[in-house]
Amino acid sequence: MKSDIEIAQGATLRPIGEIAAGLGLSEAEYSPYGHDKAKISLSVLDRLADRPDGRLVLCTAINPTAAGEGKTTTNVGLSMALNRLGHRAITTLREPSLGPSFGMKGGAAGGGHAQVVPMDDINLHFTGDFHAITSAHNLLAALLDNSLHQGNPLGINPKRVTWPRVLDMNDRALRNVVIGLGKVGDGVVRESGFEITVASEIMAALCLATGLEDLKERFGRIVVAQTYDRRPVTAADLGAPGAMALLMKDAVRPNLVQTLENTPAIIHGGPFANIAHGNNSILATRTALKLADYVVTEAGFGADLGAEKFFDIVCPAGGLTPSAVVLVATVRALKLNGGRDRKELAEEDLDALGRGVVNLEQHLENLALFGVPAVVALNRFPTDTDAELDLVRRRCAELGVDVELSEVFTRGGEGGESLARKVVELCEQDSTFTPLYGPQDGVLEKIERIATRIYRADGVDLTGPARTQLAQLEAQGHGALPVCMAKTQYSFSDDPALLGAPRGFRITVRELVVNAGAGFVVALTGDIMRMPGLPKVPAAVGMDIAGDGTITGLS
Amino acid sequence: MKSDIEIAQGATLRPIGEIAAGLGLSEAEYSPYGHDKAKISLSVLDRLADRPDGRLVLCTAINPTAAGEGKTTTNVGLSMALNRLGHRAITTLREPSLGPSFGMKGGAAGGGHAQVVPMDDINLHFTGDFHAITSAHNLLAALLDNSLHQGNPLGINPKRVTWPRVLDMNDRALRNVVIGLGKVGDGVVRESGFEITVASEIMAALCLATGLEDLKERFGRIVVAQTYDRRPVTAADLGAPGAMALLMKDAVRPNLVQTLENTPAIIHGGPFANIAHGNNSILATRTALKLADYVVTEAGFGADLGAEKFFDIVCPAGGLTPSAVVLVATVRALKLNGGRDRKELAEEDLDALGRGVVNLEQHLENLALFGVPAVVALNRFPTDTDAELDLVRRRCAELGVDVELSEVFTRGGEGGESLARKVVELCEQDSTFTPLYGPQDGVLEKIERIATRIYRADGVDLTGPARTQLAQLEAQGHGALPVCMAKTQYSFSDDPALLGAPRGFRITVRELVVNAGAGFVVALTGDIMRMPGLPKVPAAVGMDIAGDGTITGLS
Repeated sequence: MKSDIEIAQGATLRPIGEIAAGLGLSEAEYSPYGHDKAKISLSVLDRLADRPDGRLVLCTAINPTAAGEGKTTTNVGLSMALNRLGHRAITTLREPSLGPSFGMKGGAAGGGHAQVVPMDDINLHFTGDFHAITSAHNLLAALLDNSLHQGNPLGINPKRVTWPRVLDMNDRALRNVVIGLGKVGDGVVRESGFEITVASEIMAALCLATGLEDLKERFGRIVVAQTYDRRPVTAADLGAPGAMALLMKDAVRPNLVQTLENTPAIIHGGPFANIAHGNNSILATRTALKLADYVVTEAGFGADLGAEKFFDIVCPAGGLTPSAVVLVATVRALKLNGGRDRKELAEEDLDALGRGVVNLEQHLENLALFGVPAVVALNRFPTDTDAELDLVRRRCAELGVDVELSEVFTRGGEGGESLARKVVELCEQDSTFTPLYGPQDGVLEKIERIATRIYRADGVDLTGPARTQLAQLEAQGHGALPVCMAKTQYSFSDDPALLGAPRGFRITVRELVVNAGAGFVVALTGDIMRMPGLPKVPAAVGMDIAGDGTITGLS
Repeated sequence: MKSDIEIAQGATLRPIGEIAAGLGLSEAEYSPYGHDKAKISLSVLDRLADRPDGRLVLCTAINPTAAGEGKTTTNVGLSMALNRLGHRAITTLREPSLGPSFGMKGGAAGGGHAQVVPMDDINLHFTGDFHAITSAHNLLAALLDNSLHQGNPLGINPKRVTWPRVLDMNDRALRNVVIGLGKVGDGVVRESGFEITVASEIMAALCLATGLEDLKERFGRIVVAQTYDRRPVTAADLGAPGAMALLMKDAVRPNLVQTLENTPAIIHGGPFANIAHGNNSILATRTALKLADYVVTEAGFGADLGAEKFFDIVCPAGGLTPSAVVLVATVRALKLNGGRDRKELAEEDLDALGRGVVNLEQHLENLALFGVPAVVALNRFPTDTDAELDLVRRRCAELGVDVELSEVFTRGGEGGESLARKVVELCEQDSTFTPLYGPQDGVLEKIERIATRIYRADGVDLTGPARTQLAQLEAQGHGALPVCMAKTQYSFSDDPALLGAPRGFRITVRELVVNAGAGFVVALTGDIMRMPGLPKVPAAVGMDIAGDGTITGLS
């Protein structure tokens, strides 16, 4: 089979103007970026305010493993399959980050015959949104350090600066740095660090904003430091929000591209799914819902993180009501969850599969808590045996959930038609969507509810600092904010080694951070990586572009 | 009078497709970025290889002062005036940097009624070229530090890493940093620093490259460090050039916009004019020469830096032959050069003017050395008196050079018609363009020729380290490269306080750095700023964008 980039570069794209026209957009309502990318004007939302929304379908997954589940691929393939069945569907996705693309993980534009294109541009600079975020973020940092340098009129304690700098690059050497060294004109010496752009609060704020004005207000609320007398210092105190919003004036508009089968795709924003909420922008989803009958959107990592945050943070913030959930799994990953070695996943092993399928079951039980009907999309591999597929089907049936095989990687939209038919059927049912908690619940109660009902922990422990932070944030009036759990994606617990469906554990919250701009409280458990590193042989080393434009090594 | 941004946002732009069609470009030969920006395909150069080039006019200036000379404004205005006279003209410019725009200096899209538009986009992210350079530069840095971290297979001496990181931001706190702090997985501890993106060698390489393949080869030659046994380590040794070129695949294409009077403008690249060569890309200029009868291009800082480098570095690298030079000056700046206080420039002062006009005279004598006919464009201010204008005219006439008044700031192209007529006249003369030196001359001889003939120094002193570096670079076969002088822009000498036309000084070269990717040897004199800082009240603090898109504070 051809590589992803070979398939993508061989695709027949329709001019982006045709895709836009197919959605009923006028020429004034989009700006082309090259011949196959465009930004959609936010005015579309005003024009179509009275049009009923399409159906919202969330694509999530079991806990990710090294075996790969193909969530983005399924998301893209499902939208193509819906289109093949005669529905008007749009896939909405997060934008990929340059860091992982040039590091280890690869890009995030789907795979095989279920990709969004132009895959190369999407995986590279795309329309510059991440660079705008990097600029806005680092402008705020520069203004802060400049204020320290210019006599520190705000009385900022350099030891209590919490705003890092960011780069869209995997660069571990920048995690912990000392800045401001040199001569008297070279700033104030202090410890600091860089995070990857997708971890920026600006990214989370963009994805939860309802427009540029709202985004600017969110910027104003961002807390970047504390003064010597412990008062919070915000971006507004530094006079930064106007310039930051100016830098974001184009980035705030969702990006329109297409799938390999010319299904419209809206790709916008890409917040981390651990320290942030891991879903594309609300503006993208709301725009798509006005333009299509079915919108398939993706949540990052497993359903314990991505789906929970989608239901509890994104849906309330965006006024969204999901109609159905697709839970992506593979037989291989379930066998890995059941203890089988990563190198032996091609072998039939009903024992390991039986032990590992509990991960899938717990996710299905959790989704039922939210009142949204679900279907399992089993991403089919050639090595899956009929006995293995039957086992998964049987176990899901006991929970009243159907399993559909997905072959969109090898066959494109055609390979997802049965899944698409099932999704349409689920959307006809009544969704009784209810978030797990509301603004009236206390922060600790929210955390406990997530930990005990979703993770199945026995309880939650707060470290001393976290208890202090809890008291502070409630005193400062942030108690009504939703909680964004920062937890390992590999396990329901906060220990990445506990696969399957662990029991008899507690969740330790070591820090509570208010992201007032994003609009949530981050509860940090375990060690969370905010700046990845490059592997021994980075993907970048295998990349090239020839004189004729042929690209190699991008996936 | 309205502010620059008010004039720019009130302009009537033609759709960029019309501008492109007016230049004879087919739809396949450009990619729109929004409705009023586009990137031009490099294939245009192949299609028009046999078409004769238009006339190349260089716009340069006296040594810059705090009074402002209006070089970019004149460049833009002259191109509009040429168009008004019925010629096909294109202005080519450097792209502005976000750092100065949000810091102190403001943007770089011209001013008043002689601007390139969309001024806001051009001064913000434009088409993302600088962000691509930042990414390619920092990818190389990350690969280097990763190699150090992953067992250091190349034997790089961390104390001899010369490749910094870059950001397009004025951020003095990043000038000198220690990176790699933290735990064992957080990289190797070493001192390093950040420079502004326009100071990146990637920027210089882009602007001197003849295509993407050539650019990739230049990347491969970039020296980033030395090993413990003092061998140079290149980007090619780190396997970086392919991925870097991939990141630059769109940035390598020149950007098409327009002036306020719809004259086509090609804006591409923006290297520093001190440590780099300070001119837009050769690809932009060559493309423009194929599409227009007159191309007006700008060189950074005063003619001692910008024009000298244009003639000695850019023209030989690009196979360019300039037909005429416009030297921009103001009566105010000449009075400042003559010792008058900055606050008193509105007052007539023939004495100060008489003393300061020597700066203008020396630049004119220098331009004559290169064999290119020149005209002085005197950017007119309301406070200039007739007696003052006469004095400048008389002194220039003694050198056989005419003076034309330019009023393009207030009147647009109409205010530059007499200048344009003069430029056309000069272009009809025979240009006997000759660079000051050739590849056969030794590096020291090149420096001495520039220092004694252009700066009028008595001689050149090399520090001990510089002498060692000279011997090394010649031994390594870099002796034929042109020299890029890094010197203060405020004086012909290496002392920024010596205005006018100083004599009786020597030039001290403290360091010689081979930029093998850019293709020149940088001779560093004095202290050169590679990462500016923000002022007490940064321009960013006064910037805003309203809900309806109205921008304030951008200039």
